Amino acid sequence: MANSTSGDSVTDRLVRVLETFTPTRTVQTAAEIGRRAGLPGSSAHRIVGELVETGLLERDDDRRIRIGMRLWELATRSSQALRLRQASMPAMERVQSRVREHTQLAILEQDEALFLERLSAPDSGANVTRIAARLPLHASSSGLVLLAFGERDLQERILAAPLPPLTRETITDPAALRRKLAEVRTLGHAVAPGFIETVSTGVAVPVRDETGTVAAALSVVLRRDAPIEPALVELHSGKREIERALGFRG
Amino acid sequence: MANSTSGDSVTDRLVRVLETFTPTRTVQTAAEIGRRAGLPGSSAHRIVGELVETGLLERDDDRRIRIGMRLWELATRSSQALRLRQASMPAMERVQSRVREHTQLAILEQDEALFLERLSAPDSGANVTRIAARLPLHASSSGLVLLAFGERDLQERILAAPLPPLTRETITDPAALRRKLAEVRTLGHAVAPGFIETVSTGVAVPVRDETGTVAAALSVVLRRDAPIEPALVELHSGKREIERALGFRG
Repeated sequence: MANSTSGDSVTDRLVRVLETFTPTRTVQTAAEIGRRAGLPGSSAHRIVGELVETGLLERDDDRRIRIGMRLWELATRSSQALRLRQASMPAMERVQSRVREHTQLAILEQDEALFLERLSAPDSGANVTRIAARLPLHASSSGLVLLAFGERDLQERILAAPLPPLTRETITDPAALRRKLAEVRTLGHAVAPGFIETVSTGVAVPVRDETGTVAAALSVVLRRDAPIEPALVELHSGKREIERALGFRG
Repeated sequence: MANSTSGDSVTDRLVRVLETFTPTRTVQTAAEIGRRAGLPGSSAHRIVGELVETGLLERDDDRRIRIGMRLWELATRSSQALRLRQASMPAMERVQSRVREHTQLAILEQDEALFLERLSAPDSGANVTRIAARLPLHASSSGLVLLAFGERDLQERILAAPLPPLTRETITDPAALRRKLAEVRTLGHAVAPGFIETVSTGVAVPVRDETGTVAAALSVVLRRDAPIEPALVELHSGKREIERALGFRG
């Protein structure tokens, strides 16, 4: 019953439909969704219709489809993302107000850094990160922290896979990445100058949860010519505040 | 194919499964989910299994189920909630830092006020609101704003339905609520003293989007004995800042 004729479950199809929406593609027609999700037209129309009926998707006056407020509500109200985010907000606001640059919280999700929160001042510098968007582990300062303090399996998996450059300064050599991860573990923070955008330097520190596991990375995105140390001092104080809120007794 | 033997679509069942998770019930067993969603055991186990496989739900070491980070990501990254919230954050932070009490953003969703964002200082007063939680339109200051500036149909629907009290001060008489809504439209703000919790007064103002429609309510929760006016001044300045960010030229 839950399986369609093509063998994938309705849940799979649902995920494929949701995956067609991205931070830069927030509105689509049902036909576009079907094409991008690889679903036959009739099947796409039926599943989109059902999702609209339940409020998980919404249809506007022009019959274009967007993510429904109901889906956001159901996904958010009891999520781990919200818990981590709530525990981190006071510290993040303090860091943001002192460093006055983008301040971010990321976790490890499916071998990438997933950003749960980003606070920005109107005059903050360049930054590609968005809430609920991802960056590669080997390139972002948050990713380097999550990777350096992550499980050995994860490290070997990433080191064995291609390391695509985002700029000419991204680390793409496995041996150099291995050295960088050792550096991050020794120093307790990651600096990623120009790895994501040549004009910016990411700086990140690990945040431990009540079990002592690194659960998140707290980071700021500095202008390339800005000094690192003042931001690091704020990150360390913010990190300790979040860890206390999460119940870590380190 | 998408329909189960009992006639509801798999999408319906999925929504019922997600609805069993609440802000205070974030972890459940598959059996508990099935019981609360009104699904037969085998069906509950299958759909939970599928949702875990796609990452929409997550299973911990004790085989307990929670909302998956993947669901949060898919629901958030292209949502209208995120857009509104991003447009509002700088203004909300300013209001929060000046009023130093809970500062909130709510929208109308299925005849209730749905809270998209809440900023709190560590020393803020009592507040039942949570992100992605809801309050009744007739009781919360945000709800009163959304109702007063909402469509006539909505107003008549709410006025015709029971108006359950949350405290002894909640408006429960339709004629009194009608007068209150007229007051809100005239003054351009709603004050709800003790309607939700006897110790607090909610104060809310409408926020218009680029079409001039009231898209949200910006509010603060004051201690019952605090003066209203200083907070109102901040709310009005915050509201104008959000409206500019949303493209409203009023």
